[in-house]
Amino acid sequence: MALWAVVIAGGAGTRFWPASTPARPKQLLALGPGSDEPLLLATTRRLRSLVPEARLVVATGAHLGDATRALLPDLPPANLLAEPAPRNTAACIGWAAREIEARDPDAVVCVFPADHAVRDLGAFLEAARAAAALASEGRIVTIGLAPTRPETGYGYIELGEPLPGHARAREVTRFVEKPSREVAEEYVRGGRHLWNGGLVVGQAARMRAAIAAHLPALAEGLDELQAARGRAREEALSRVFPSLPSISIDHGVMERERGLAVVPGDFGWSDVGSWLTAWELAEKDARGNATGGAVVVDSERCLVRSLTTGRPRAIALVGVEDLVVVETDDALLVVRRDRAEDVKLAVDALRARAR
Amino acid sequence: MALWAVVIAGGAGTRFWPASTPARPKQLLALGPGSDEPLLLATTRRLRSLVPEARLVVATGAHLGDATRALLPDLPPANLLAEPAPRNTAACIGWAAREIEARDPDAVVCVFPADHAVRDLGAFLEAARAAAALASEGRIVTIGLAPTRPETGYGYIELGEPLPGHARAREVTRFVEKPSREVAEEYVRGGRHLWNGGLVVGQAARMRAAIAAHLPALAEGLDELQAARGRAREEALSRVFPSLPSISIDHGVMERERGLAVVPGDFGWSDVGSWLTAWELAEKDARGNATGGAVVVDSERCLVRSLTTGRPRAIALVGVEDLVVVETDDALLVVRRDRAEDVKLAVDALRARAR
Repeated sequence: MALWAVVIAGGAGTRFWPASTPARPKQLLALGPGSDEPLLLATTRRLRSLVPEARLVVATGAHLGDATRALLPDLPPANLLAEPAPRNTAACIGWAAREIEARDPDAVVCVFPADHAVRDLGAFLEAARAAAALASEGRIVTIGLAPTRPETGYGYIELGEPLPGHARAREVTRFVEKPSREVAEEYVRGGRHLWNGGLVVGQAARMRAAIAAHLPALAEGLDELQAARGRAREEALSRVFPSLPSISIDHGVMERERGLAVVPGDFGWSDVGSWLTAWELAEKDARGNATGGAVVVDSERCLVRSLTTGRPRAIALVGVEDLVVVETDDALLVVRRDRAEDVKLAVDALRARAR
Repeated sequence: MALWAVVIAGGAGTRFWPASTPARPKQLLALGPGSDEPLLLATTRRLRSLVPEARLVVATGAHLGDATRALLPDLPPANLLAEPAPRNTAACIGWAAREIEARDPDAVVCVFPADHAVRDLGAFLEAARAAAALASEGRIVTIGLAPTRPETGYGYIELGEPLPGHARAREVTRFVEKPSREVAEEYVRGGRHLWNGGLVVGQAARMRAAIAAHLPALAEGLDELQAARGRAREEALSRVFPSLPSISIDHGVMERERGLAVVPGDFGWSDVGSWLTAWELAEKDARGNATGGAVVVDSERCLVRSLTTGRPRAIALVGVEDLVVVETDDALLVVRRDRAEDVKLAVDALRARAR
């Protein structure tokens, strides 16, 4: 088997407003540890330790094609899958798996979101390889993340029986959607649940079969796509893709499929979910500030990000704590670090005002 | 006697950085109550209730001449005194008094800084007229402000004996420069001290005599200035003015002069000394925010001022308290309201960086 990696680089999201916009979604922002490169670049850098560039596939929205190509100049053009419309992860992964299977029928495919962060590359590669080895035996495998807090915004994977011959790998008993605080605390204490980070590994052919079993309409659409070649392909893509069922791989396949396996991963994973996380991941000075070139007077635990074009402005913080300050050409946000989840309220208010 | 008003509109200051700059000093900023007009405009509006426009004189730096004229289109051109170099208040007031005396030998001159705020116009006018009446008898008079807190950054005026026939007016016993906290608290409790706000009232001829007595070099320079007429005046101004002694009217005259009188003023005076004061003076919503068009989510007691040119940016505050956020084309400041005095530390740091 040959291992292929698929990077899912869709998404928009308002949690990183004003830095994130439809034309500059989260994966194009430098939000990971060190904060010096966009998350997508960090993700592909990581995966180049797992697979050669020729077996790296990036799926993104058509409107992000140019920005993605600019960021990844070495990516073979055929390995950039540009979705004409966002149809959620099942369609995206299904398409990528079909595309890869067409080129390499024995491929094992590892799917990774473009906008997550990983601190420990070695542990990440180890988990990915363990998952790939397990997947090569015909199972669909997810890499489950060691929970570090009773997060209520994530899905959890309940661990079942150990899988003989695969150290640490387990059967998946079930997936649990965003639990209550109490339940999440039990999960973290109990040690029998891992976070579901959407990291899926499986043979391309096996994934096709699973989609055919659980999402026949999607499978049919993907069949039609794959049947078209040359110029007809573009036409089929723009005609068929936007009408594919829009459902996540979790709801559409993982929660319905039997015999799933999970490989635990403990590699400092983060979904980089908000400005709070961005602050946590950023390289900070002794007072907890990650403020770029800002002048900082008696201030602590602040994050400053300036994404303006043109001549940079002087930025100064005086006597403030626990703030995130983000500016772009269009907007300025000042938010308490621990209220970062509520940035969407500001976005909603601005949208309401615009109407 | 005819009453004249002189507005001293010099100054630069870093306390309102980044809003204030040499080309846009504090008096050109809208920082007073209501915040809809520059302080200079509010000051002259106030004084138009005291004197006709023809007897309103504005002294400012030559580099601010255009901006000042633009703000005060009705001011007679001859009533704008443009100083070729800043030489502190004694030179400024001395020049204005000489200029006024030349036009109106019996003039009584009221001097007001351009960048202070007054809440109660009626009480202000009453105090100014009382001071003018007293001044018309030959005394130099200061209007002392009722202290509302033990401010250690101001000078205080110690009250002496009442002046018969002038309700509330007193002899001045002495001026006290910035006292210690303890002393300031005593002053506020004791009721025998008023703040010195630099509000001076006196006959133009009397002020000339006082300057001649205490600052002979200044008087000589002003003599030379006044002797020059027509084109020679401009020449004399640019030659003589920059070499005038640079000293404040307080140190140079008021602290040395005997027989000063003080009229207490209780008209909601503020020297608008910092962003904290600007917040205090601003019109605020029920949660204490004065944030212009900003989107405000769960935030309290904040001041937002955007002085950018061009297309305005969206500004959002989320979950923050007691902040002042000020942006210009060149800079962005985020400071805790009660640390507003430390803005100068940021300015110092930026200057050090520029070197």
